[in-house]
Amino acid sequence: MTISQALKERIRYAPYLAKVREPHELVSLFKNGQYLGWSGFTGVGTPKAVPQAIISHVEKNNLQGKLRFNLFVGASAGPEEEAWANHDMIIKRAPHQVGKPIAKAINAGRINFFDKHLSMFPQDLTYGFYTRERTDGKILDYMIIEATAIKEDGSIVPGPSVGGSPEFISVADKVIVEVNTATPSFEGLHDIDMPVNPPYRKPYPYVKVNDKCGVDSIPVDPEKVIAIVESTTRDKVPPNSPSDEMSRGIASHLVEFFRNEVNHGRLPETLLPLQSGIGNIANAVIEGLATANFKHLNVWTEVLQDSFLDLFENGSLDYATATSIRLTENGFKRVFNNWDSFKSKLCLRSQVVSNNPELIRRLGVIAMNTPVEVDIYAHANSTNVNGSRMLNGLGGSADFLRNAKISIMHAPSARPTKIDPTGISSIVPMVPHVDQTEHDLDVIVTEQGLADLRGLSPKERAREIIKQCAHPDYKDLLIEYVQRSEHYCEKKNSLHEPHMLKNAFKFHTNLMEKGTMKIEGWDPID
Amino acid sequence: MTISQALKERIRYAPYLAKVREPHELVSLFKNGQYLGWSGFTGVGTPKAVPQAIISHVEKNNLQGKLRFNLFVGASAGPEEEAWANHDMIIKRAPHQVGKPIAKAINAGRINFFDKHLSMFPQDLTYGFYTRERTDGKILDYMIIEATAIKEDGSIVPGPSVGGSPEFISVADKVIVEVNTATPSFEGLHDIDMPVNPPYRKPYPYVKVNDKCGVDSIPVDPEKVIAIVESTTRDKVPPNSPSDEMSRGIASHLVEFFRNEVNHGRLPETLLPLQSGIGNIANAVIEGLATANFKHLNVWTEVLQDSFLDLFENGSLDYATATSIRLTENGFKRVFNNWDSFKSKLCLRSQVVSNNPELIRRLGVIAMNTPVEVDIYAHANSTNVNGSRMLNGLGGSADFLRNAKISIMHAPSARPTKIDPTGISSIVPMVPHVDQTEHDLDVIVTEQGLADLRGLSPKERAREIIKQCAHPDYKDLLIEYVQRSEHYCEKKNSLHEPHMLKNAFKFHTNLMEKGTMKIEGWDPID
Repeated sequence: MTISQALKERIRYAPYLAKVREPHELVSLFKNGQYLGWSGFTGVGTPKAVPQAIISHVEKNNLQGKLRFNLFVGASAGPEEEAWANHDMIIKRAPHQVGKPIAKAINAGRINFFDKHLSMFPQDLTYGFYTRERTDGKILDYMIIEATAIKEDGSIVPGPSVGGSPEFISVADKVIVEVNTATPSFEGLHDIDMPVNPPYRKPYPYVKVNDKCGVDSIPVDPEKVIAIVESTTRDKVPPNSPSDEMSRGIASHLVEFFRNEVNHGRLPETLLPLQSGIGNIANAVIEGLATANFKHLNVWTEVLQDSFLDLFENGSLDYATATSIRLTENGFKRVFNNWDSFKSKLCLRSQVVSNNPELIRRLGVIAMNTPVEVDIYAHANSTNVNGSRMLNGLGGSADFLRNAKISIMHAPSARPTKIDPTGISSIVPMVPHVDQTEHDLDVIVTEQGLADLRGLSPKERAREIIKQCAHPDYKDLLIEYVQRSEHYCEKKNSLHEPHMLKNAFKFHTNLMEKGTMKIEGWDPID
Repeated sequence: MTISQALKERIRYAPYLAKVREPHELVSLFKNGQYLGWSGFTGVGTPKAVPQAIISHVEKNNLQGKLRFNLFVGASAGPEEEAWANHDMIIKRAPHQVGKPIAKAINAGRINFFDKHLSMFPQDLTYGFYTRERTDGKILDYMIIEATAIKEDGSIVPGPSVGGSPEFISVADKVIVEVNTATPSFEGLHDIDMPVNPPYRKPYPYVKVNDKCGVDSIPVDPEKVIAIVESTTRDKVPPNSPSDEMSRGIASHLVEFFRNEVNHGRLPETLLPLQSGIGNIANAVIEGLATANFKHLNVWTEVLQDSFLDLFENGSLDYATATSIRLTENGFKRVFNNWDSFKSKLCLRSQVVSNNPELIRRLGVIAMNTPVEVDIYAHANSTNVNGSRMLNGLGGSADFLRNAKISIMHAPSARPTKIDPTGISSIVPMVPHVDQTEHDLDVIVTEQGLADLRGLSPKERAREIIKQCAHPDYKDLLIEYVQRSEHYCEKKNSLHEPHMLKNAFKFHTNLMEKGTMKIEGWDPID
């Protein structure tokens, strides 16, 4: 077959040229029930051509529900996984996902999904924990990985994410490489640690965000690489949600908090490495820091989004490292137009490293994430609405919040429902699903205010969270819950963390039945 | 004053001899509202003479409720903290406690208690997080530490625990040392890392359980040491609960599980470093391993108890490290009678190191702990009965279970109440307090059987846990809960982790009202 000039320029290991194939030529390799790994993280750096060829095959031959796979990706993949879900091509999926079709299939019970700490998922896969039912001893049948270049030794230079690819490749029976010629090469931006398992592990040597001690491409046994495919589809990242009054309110409370921590000597003037999630609150916080005159900031995070480019460009940010750089088309243009400058300020690592407790705790990261809701004692629900309906999965939230020096969750104090503009309170008596425990969170902030919970007992926490963070529409209800619970638990000699179990989920059941958390009142108990 | 010959022999730094005092001479130093640190962990290595002198002062002058302190200990202290609780001498207490008087005071609302991961509490204290309300900038007014020897440089050789002492000393305004002359010197058994905070932290270099890279005593500025007190009271550790049929049942399921992991190549023949809690189940598991012909085992844990001595003596165990060696009188005799042998096989570290995620994950520890209860989706309650009544605190359970290679929780399938020998099920629809999340647990085991949850979706987990682990008295009720929840959640498009929030705590409310979790049936919902 003809090999494009663009592809030839990306492949510096000649024997691979004999393995170049069209995606449709590979479709027959894929059998019902196989275990597949994909590269990618938060929708960038995913394989596109081969998954799309399999979709076409399923559509053409009406194989919906008949050609199904166990699919593992570092975190969420892109539109291809949505199409796979729509075509009932997924048996099992872990550890994270994004997109309506796949969430719908999970919540309809058609996909067996489990979410796991993103720092642990790839290592646990290499242990064979997730493929125990296989009788052939294999872990992954195929790893399909997107590359932006191939080095002289056949090793793979990833694109805008590293994710779980190093671990997946290490346990894949066979590897298919999609070389993306539409995306510029990211060579030089990665620092990759290949997996070493106990009892042979050594310390990760990193003591600063910009330390690089790994390799700049993913080593692979060329014998395992059975095909090279050219991909010409770019990652599609939707525009970021702009900040608004609510998110700017949160940002301003946080900036004030950081200033106060610096004044009291609990943080240095340059703060400590920041971790920030995705979304408009995260964006507003980054914008807030950029305008608040903090200088020489560093970032140790999971995913970088466009707002960090502003921090670089206004001189506030010295260095940023993540496992994925999820930029819009325009964001990538900004990076590639100043490649030499950004290359010296950016590093992409595996998710096992970016999210590793060892490094998060050593560096003293400041972690900021958005939950579905938090309760009055500071447990947070990050994943399951009303305790049962999966959104996206745990992601790296618990990796960071458990180990950070300061663990922060931020959310609007209330959210709208169809019938009530403040029908959902982000502060509830008890969360119906716990992903972060009371032992993990230091600070909760809404646009109403900031609750600093460090060193407070549960009863003290409840009053502080309600006072500082709850929406005015819910303050009285929550205070009444606390008072009634204390009265009830005093009689039961259980005043450590007072609850009325019969009322604990009344906000949620009311929401499901009546479309708002605004209840008439608490049920009497004795 | 007269200095005993025994005391002189323990103190190799002469200037301290001028600081020797009787405990009662120090009582006037202690003022209402002060912040105190004590050495000790799980009731051993705690100061005794000075706390007892303050008790006598309170009793003599009727100061109950008038002389109160913020008291921080690495974990639980001994009978002295119980007496302090009885005399209403504690304002605030963290991060763990043991004993009826103190739990009673917490659950009566008289002590503000908060529990925190034991690996984090000491570092967070040094950050100033728990003393934010102080206006004088101090953290601890006094650190009272038990020593078994003083070295030539004035540094402190602890006794049978290290705990949080290195961190507490580093932030104490003044230090009081109780030299215990009734306990033999533990010199040579410790490996101590003094705290270094971000951004200056380096990797912990340990890659094997027997690596020692720290110092063998706790350095202290002699100027800060204001008094030396002789203590002649030994630690009192109650006899261990013997194993019984239930705990031997659990042990036998676990031994079979380990054999199977070895056979499938997921664990080496010598297993990986073991962490095991305190109590009769932990004891039975250790006994089970000792008789199951596992050889060259290693232990990386928080607390060692007598059963580990059997493992050493039958040649199964090569090396054990912890932050506390909580032996009975007889256990200590066994150690001191073979001091040279045990000294080469035992190491005590700070709790920040013994419980550090960095080391637990690197070494691939196998973690085993006992919860209050677990739910059908594998969340566990380790701390609060019925969601509100504090038992002892989180301890190190989450440090180990979050980071271990294999995370195991074990419990009897049912426990008795006053009216029903199986009135409490350890498997419940939803735990009313979450300390370990579904993302943290791999294996749940009761005397009924073992549920291996790795790679299972929540719906698969529920069936496996009920089938393998639930007591027969509760199986049908639990299966019906699952089926009804699935039916309900199917209509709500929320089948990821099916629950009926109105029924989720019915086991618990029934227990509180009727003394058993055996309900008549589930309330209908729609």
